[in-house]
Amino acid sequence: MQTVLKGPSTEVVIGPDEPIVMIGERINPTGRKAFSAELQAGDLSRIPRDAVAQAEAGATVLDVNVGAASVDEVALLPRAVQMVQDAVDLPVCLDSPNPAALAAALKVVRGRALINSVNGESDKLAAVLPLVAEYGAAVIALCMDDSGIPATPEARLAVAEAILEQAQALGIPPEDVVFDPLVMAVGADHTAGATTLATAHLIRERLGSNMTAGASNASHGMPEREVLNTVFLALLAQAGVNAPICNPLKNGLAVRAIDLMMGHDEWGGAYIKAYRTLQKREAQSS
Amino acid sequence: MQTVLKGPSTEVVIGPDEPIVMIGERINPTGRKAFSAELQAGDLSRIPRDAVAQAEAGATVLDVNVGAASVDEVALLPRAVQMVQDAVDLPVCLDSPNPAALAAALKVVRGRALINSVNGESDKLAAVLPLVAEYGAAVIALCMDDSGIPATPEARLAVAEAILEQAQALGIPPEDVVFDPLVMAVGADHTAGATTLATAHLIRERLGSNMTAGASNASHGMPEREVLNTVFLALLAQAGVNAPICNPLKNGLAVRAIDLMMGHDEWGGAYIKAYRTLQKREAQSS
Repeated sequence: MQTVLKGPSTEVVIGPDEPIVMIGERINPTGRKAFSAELQAGDLSRIPRDAVAQAEAGATVLDVNVGAASVDEVALLPRAVQMVQDAVDLPVCLDSPNPAALAAALKVVRGRALINSVNGESDKLAAVLPLVAEYGAAVIALCMDDSGIPATPEARLAVAEAILEQAQALGIPPEDVVFDPLVMAVGADHTAGATTLATAHLIRERLGSNMTAGASNASHGMPEREVLNTVFLALLAQAGVNAPICNPLKNGLAVRAIDLMMGHDEWGGAYIKAYRTLQKREAQSS
Repeated sequence: MQTVLKGPSTEVVIGPDEPIVMIGERINPTGRKAFSAELQAGDLSRIPRDAVAQAEAGATVLDVNVGAASVDEVALLPRAVQMVQDAVDLPVCLDSPNPAALAAALKVVRGRALINSVNGESDKLAAVLPLVAEYGAAVIALCMDDSGIPATPEARLAVAEAILEQAQALGIPPEDVVFDPLVMAVGADHTAGATTLATAHLIRERLGSNMTAGASNASHGMPEREVLNTVFLALLAQAGVNAPICNPLKNGLAVRAIDLMMGHDEWGGAYIKAYRTLQKREAQSS
């Protein structure tokens, strides 16, 4: 099953036999005070720089989130998307809880976007799925619903199946729904990682869907988070999560290492390229 | 299926629902010039230090290999084993291609050892399996035979099945055969990692056996080997390799991170402990 996303003139394919697609997470004010303040002042100048840096580090889809407090996302999200696609020829991932902002951004997107996100809540499904269908976009679907986040892999799978059914009723094909098995902090519950992995295995086995995940959520509050994030990205990849949302400047080499070890990098060319890019960046910053 | 190894007074269990058992690889002259020269001069003084350092870093089984050029392993391996078990209360992994050296070491081992290794070659099976049976030891079995290293996962599984049959004929129970799916360098063949992972999946699925692997073999000749080794250890673990032979001083934190992410580390206690051990070692060496 292949999910095809498009930039102004590029195509990105998410699929089980493809190299991992990194969705760059940096264009997001969450936890970034300076960027939040800039967005609140209507200053988007950081966006093209973040777009280029992530593309250089190996991201092939860029998440765009401008949701700082008091910001008018309906006005700002389309502008941000245009700036990203003026800077880099990549598909975007439109990240907002506001359907009006998603609709406004979809009007200006070049290519074929991924919408972040829908879940199994009835309001959410009613607001977002029609946009996905209308614009022929793809969508990230979180495995949670009106009852919250299911505790077991089987219950998360059931939510995924219900979302898939609703999507199909609107003519959205199954390959355009990219599931997120949900990553919680292992510091709060040491079985959280195992639950996510088991959910991903089930979804891959039963539905064959492509998947994303915010891998770094698992390591919140733990020391040496990069070690945890690196091994979790590997475990997730083997469980079928082939389009993680991550920071390519931190995880880029690890993701290419996973591809190489899984046999998805002929001659190790992409790994060596990622290594050289990292060396170059370190030389510039030192 | 559980493989139980014993030290002088400790027990180590290798099993699918257990934390990963690290078999410490450091007591081995391969690639260590100073240690080779010491062994050739009959100087074993490095061995207790290496044993203690690896145990502190989280190894719970220690590989013991004294095979430097021109060394009399029959005399030296039993002495080395005794020194290791005087220094740390852990099971040993007797690592020698010489059956007489294995027999001599088995006479002095305290507890229950793992023998490293047998493979599907008829001479090897005839020389090593009777020792395993006689001393009630466990054994590592490499998935290769008289025809060499099979190219496909299915052919490696067939070798494993043949070894298992021979072992059972001698009364060695299946849980005492720990398979090595064989790790080759991805720099020479970019599908090597995928072949190892597919072999491990097959062995776990069809035979239910525990497995070891020399994970770091995969990264020979590549830059940033630690990144490759870390992600490969994670991928191997998920494929069922639960007793890797590795360097705990380099891989210890990553292995505990894998356990935590797979739900095998209650409250993250072992991960935090590994982190503190690493911090302490770094403070001492700086």
